[in-house]
Amino acid sequence: MPYPFGNNLRLDICGGSHDPEITMTLSGLPAGLAIDPAQLRAFTSRRAPGQNAWSCPRREADVPEFLGGLSERDGMLYTDGTPIFARIRNTNARPSDYDSDIPRPGHADLAAYLKYGKDVDLRGGGHFSGRLTALTCLAGGICLQYLATKDIHIGAHALSIGGVSDVPLDPVNNEIPVFSGEDFPTYDQAASERMQTEIAKAHAEGDSLGGMIECKITGAPAGLGEHMFCSVESVISQAVWSIPAVKGISFGAGFDVARMRGSQNNDAIFTDGTHIYTETNNAGGVLGGMTFGMPIVFKVTIKPTPSIAGKQRSISFSRMENTALQISGRHDPCIVPRAVPVVEATAALAVTDLLLDL
Amino acid sequence: MPYPFGNNLRLDICGGSHDPEITMTLSGLPAGLAIDPAQLRAFTSRRAPGQNAWSCPRREADVPEFLGGLSERDGMLYTDGTPIFARIRNTNARPSDYDSDIPRPGHADLAAYLKYGKDVDLRGGGHFSGRLTALTCLAGGICLQYLATKDIHIGAHALSIGGVSDVPLDPVNNEIPVFSGEDFPTYDQAASERMQTEIAKAHAEGDSLGGMIECKITGAPAGLGEHMFCSVESVISQAVWSIPAVKGISFGAGFDVARMRGSQNNDAIFTDGTHIYTETNNAGGVLGGMTFGMPIVFKVTIKPTPSIAGKQRSISFSRMENTALQISGRHDPCIVPRAVPVVEATAALAVTDLLLDL
Amino acid sequence: MPYPFGNNLRLDICGGSHDPEITMTLSGLPAGLAIDPAQLRAFTSRRAPGQNAWSCPRREADVPEFLGGLSERDGMLYTDGTPIFARIRNTNARPSDYDSDIPRPGHADLAAYLKYGKDVDLRGGGHFSGRLTALTCLAGGICLQYLATKDIHIGAHALSIGGVSDVPLDPVNNEIPVFSGEDFPTYDQAASERMQTEIAKAHAEGDSLGGMIECKITGAPAGLGEHMFCSVESVISQAVWSIPAVKGISFGAGFDVARMRGSQNNDAIFTDGTHIYTETNNAGGVLGGMTFGMPIVFKVTIKPTPSIAGKQRSISFSRMENTALQISGRHDPCIVPRAVPVVEATAALAVTDLLLDL
Amino acid sequence: MPYPFGNNLRLDICGGSHDPEITMTLSGLPAGLAIDPAQLRAFTSRRAPGQNAWSCPRREADVPEFLGGLSERDGMLYTDGTPIFARIRNTNARPSDYDSDIPRPGHADLAAYLKYGKDVDLRGGGHFSGRLTALTCLAGGICLQYLATKDIHIGAHALSIGGVSDVPLDPVNNEIPVFSGEDFPTYDQAASERMQTEIAKAHAEGDSLGGMIECKITGAPAGLGEHMFCSVESVISQAVWSIPAVKGISFGAGFDVARMRGSQNNDAIFTDGTHIYTETNNAGGVLGGMTFGMPIVFKVTIKPTPSIAGKQRSISFSRMENTALQISGRHDPCIVPRAVPVVEATAALAVTDLLLDL
Repeated sequence: MPYPFGNNLRLDICGGSHDPEITMTLSGLPAGLAIDPAQLRAFTSRRAPGQNAWSCPRREADVPEFLGGLSERDGMLYTDGTPIFARIRNTNARPSDYDSDIPRPGHADLAAYLKYGKDVDLRGGGHFSGRLTALTCLAGGICLQYLATKDIHIGAHALSIGGVSDVPLDPVNNEIPVFSGEDFPTYDQAASERMQTEIAKAHAEGDSLGGMIECKITGAPAGLGEHMFCSVESVISQAVWSIPAVKGISFGAGFDVARMRGSQNNDAIFTDGTHIYTETNNAGGVLGGMTFGMPIVFKVTIKPTPSIAGKQRSISFSRMENTALQISGRHDPCIVPRAVPVVEATAALAVTDLLLDL
Repeated sequence: MPYPFGNNLRLDICGGSHDPEITMTLSGLPAGLAIDPAQLRAFTSRRAPGQNAWSCPRREADVPEFLGGLSERDGMLYTDGTPIFARIRNTNARPSDYDSDIPRPGHADLAAYLKYGKDVDLRGGGHFSGRLTALTCLAGGICLQYLATKDIHIGAHALSIGGVSDVPLDPVNNEIPVFSGEDFPTYDQAASERMQTEIAKAHAEGDSLGGMIECKITGAPAGLGEHMFCSVESVISQAVWSIPAVKGISFGAGFDVARMRGSQNNDAIFTDGTHIYTETNNAGGVLGGMTFGMPIVFKVTIKPTPSIAGKQRSISFSRMENTALQISGRHDPCIVPRAVPVVEATAALAVTDLLLDL
Repeated sequence: MPYPFGNNLRLDICGGSHDPEITMTLSGLPAGLAIDPAQLRAFTSRRAPGQNAWSCPRREADVPEFLGGLSERDGMLYTDGTPIFARIRNTNARPSDYDSDIPRPGHADLAAYLKYGKDVDLRGGGHFSGRLTALTCLAGGICLQYLATKDIHIGAHALSIGGVSDVPLDPVNNEIPVFSGEDFPTYDQAASERMQTEIAKAHAEGDSLGGMIECKITGAPAGLGEHMFCSVESVISQAVWSIPAVKGISFGAGFDVARMRGSQNNDAIFTDGTHIYTETNNAGGVLGGMTFGMPIVFKVTIKPTPSIAGKQRSISFSRMENTALQISGRHDPCIVPRAVPVVEATAALAVTDLLLDL
Repeated sequence: MPYPFGNNLRLDICGGSHDPEITMTLSGLPAGLAIDPAQLRAFTSRRAPGQNAWSCPRREADVPEFLGGLSERDGMLYTDGTPIFARIRNTNARPSDYDSDIPRPGHADLAAYLKYGKDVDLRGGGHFSGRLTALTCLAGGICLQYLATKDIHIGAHALSIGGVSDVPLDPVNNEIPVFSGEDFPTYDQAASERMQTEIAKAHAEGDSLGGMIECKITGAPAGLGEHMFCSVESVISQAVWSIPAVKGISFGAGFDVARMRGSQNNDAIFTDGTHIYTETNNAGGVLGGMTFGMPIVFKVTIKPTPSIAGKQRSISFSRMENTALQISGRHDPCIVPRAVPVVEATAALAVTDLLLDL
């Protein structure tokens, strides 16, 4: 059965892409926390579709309605200690766009059909749609404001798209750079432009692009996480794997450590007499599953959007025959830019859950 | 606080590297399951130290004592439905090898000290030692026998060590190859020999090597896992991240998808009229967090053993001063070969947990 | 933080008495289960207010809207394996009836204010209102239909109200009697009439009555429940304690065992060669936390409704002064009859959770 | 499967009555907590058998061995933040006393056999024995010392045994009386003597007695517990139901409320301008599942020990025939006195779990 996220925080997400609404329940935050709705809105709108050239043309304002757990006073929302319960309406659903009899390669359709049987709602991915990450962003955006009260900050960017790379984050210092432009989540303006060119090119060719996202968390205290089954990596991973397009996650030097020697990979330890630091941060801020005061840095790989224009080989569920599929519907040629705030949101959920365990 | 592994299966692990014993409790398996102790022993001994040139010289027989949950009949062990409770004694502990005042770079020492304070037991890594994976193997070895009754099989190998690569697993067929030799977990004998040469060389230079492990699970039914927070990837990841040296995990085409297009990455779907397959398996057997009947394939990256012979920069906790550290103790120049059965064990724990949810 | 109910089933309840709506999410039931909406409606309407003389005059149709997890076909609802997500609208809310500054003796107001602070919504009990048991009934009513497919049946009745007693349930046989009348949940018609007279009398005097509810579960297989912390008693209790007015719960001979001897209390065991029975059932169907095939029988005590007409001593939160309170609003003079289906619903939730563990 | 106790604290208990040892793991307490082993020993010895005339003659010192989580310094034990892992050896086991083919009426034997099948260990109750409450006391004794640092205190007494009653606890004030004598847990010396006479008499007649235990918790802050499924009553109940002989639990006026009117049962609220109190405490310190600053008071009913000397009707599992049973073994004629510290221990576990949620 579906399990909620978190041991100390708890997030439950319900609904499907073309249902009237999707909802979330977020429990565990302290009472009296002030949430700035404008700031929350600014955060969630970074993920909302239909904003710009590289995004899916389905327009959804994604305005949350809070039905419980928050009370308004002087333009701010205050947690009252009961679960935060919110709804986002699906205002622009077009279920008729979808033919649920032919599973779309690379989508959850096939797995969902085999798991739940022929009654499962697959219109636009149903419950298995990336649309549900609108709620991940809403919950994570609230957690980001909670973490900011503890001076913990989280920033992610598009590290690479279609072979073009942004400047990587510095894993040692405590800074999170600002994006070079307004819309596109890179630090290097030239990279931003070249990535957008690549996306436009793939789109024109009826194809899609994958990429990588890098995320940094600063200010997290030492001692978050547990050895074995509740490590920082495991909690962040659990949150990150809820993003449909993710195919891999690594911390610090990550997959590069496979080719390193211990003498290169070990981060030397030093002190200024008051605090303890490491000179490098190949560990990505985690040792033995626990933080030690350096920034947490991880990378996530995002697959190319499976919805592409070309004809694809698939089957008909009802006839159990091979057939061809031509996808219509509205889709992103590259989901990476819109996935950047989702990665930040999942990191915020995970760090909040870990922090509430202390 | 430390959390156990699993929603339907539950594994709890206690104790430290140089305590008299380490223990595990495994709940949730059905009553009446037959466990072959010889086969279990053969599996766990693949991880046990002191067996060969490339392994840590600390010799531990790692014989489990079962204190509850299993009853013996005619040489077989039968689960009785109560928790399986087992102990492994630490027979060859040498706590005096360790100076807990100077944290070893790349080890959990620094994080554990900052989390738990000066009373924490850091001898040989204490509770944070890779030694606790002896229990992961024990629990996972039991699960492997349970899964075999459902015709689910799991095999991993050393995909790369020190720049040398083994032949990769075929993600489409249902076969798990046998190792080319007795001791070393590769499919290609030439790769095995070159990897061992690389390890010996690094060892001779007082250094250590990292590498990659690839794992394949065949026979898992479609419909394992849940969208969002209890995906197959998230459950396998949680188990895998309990292995201390892991720095990354990816499924199917994994980190390669960052440079792929949708037209390349999408796995075409076809049917023979009875079953449904995909032509390729870039998905690694998971779509939308759920299995769809193809093998589950994932890769794990293992960092080079942090215990190396050379002098390293560290600090003294008690004096809060910078100092040099020269590690003695007994260590593996490359943990990858011994980590292979641990990866299989964690996969078995995860798949069992997912299977018990159906 | 609020926790959901269940280990294998999971029920989450959100919202408050005078919010626009209250919602529930129920996960863990198998896919393909057929739910008869008319039967569900008949069950939940037994709890709905405003039906008759002895019930609160607030009229709420309590019609659930299913937003996920169920699909309709030929007038029946079928679970699709995803969480069942439902809403009940509060159509007849009158928040202005309430002055949240003066806590009502015997209500949750005082505790909720001290826990959550002055922003907590106390109108009509807010989240702490018995109104939320409309959702308990909805979820439990679905579970009752699931249990019926396993030939497990649950029936409760008003064992006593205001000193008048109904005939007790036979703890040994597998029958659940039918109510003597349509509206009032007793087996003895004379008891029904005398109870209603007592309620009317107390109501006329501006007062309220408590009582006891007895519940029987037939057909539950042996082996439900676990020794120690997941006993049948503990799981049923956890569900039952969610009903606001409950002050005690006992199984089998219950509080009478305090005055019994072992020779009286022990239930002799016998067999007909095929099945095993006990001659009496003082155990209430549970030994060592586990069922053994006899009916599960438990009693619940319900306090008199705290909302009474007379003047009561209380305080003003804002002025921290003693003051008098005269309650208006609409209330039940005795909640016992409407609590009977809620007890059945909680029992159904608990037994379903235990059954899904097997 | 067996579940551990607690959401924020976690207690797992393993082993059986006639196994070499029984073990517990307790997680979630803060690091640096000082535990006085002498005080812990004094507490657990109140439950240990073989101390006096009214207790089972099996002598067990019940000395715990701490294998993890505590470090000794100057005669005190300090939590180090990792799980507290402890073992109690069964030094005086006599498994040959038991014939597991004939289930003992009133014991868990029948249910355990039906649940787990013929391999289940039923010697002396096996895993289902009251002996496991030695670990409950150990864990609860540690929690009692934790609670004392927060000025929370817990005391229980034998409220009634065999028709003899002790003076009840005052539910309003914050005092916990001291026992009138050294060994027997009553406040009234005359009651103590009459109870012991009744026990001796029942024992001489080959029979056993039940009784009631009352427990009071002072100093618990307002705001513990949650409405619905994590109420104070539900958490305390879950812990209390782990005691094998319990048949009922009630809070405050408890089962008496069934005959009360609202005007009698409601606790009037008043303030001295600084704090808020209730004049009476029929609520037992809990409203809407949450504490409000008054003492928590609950009653538990304990059944007469099922092991009695007389011949009883039972069956043979192997032959599926009716047969007579004459129990030998060593047993308590009344378990109430030894259950008093177990009730205190379960209350301590529950309150600690609730407190750690704040």
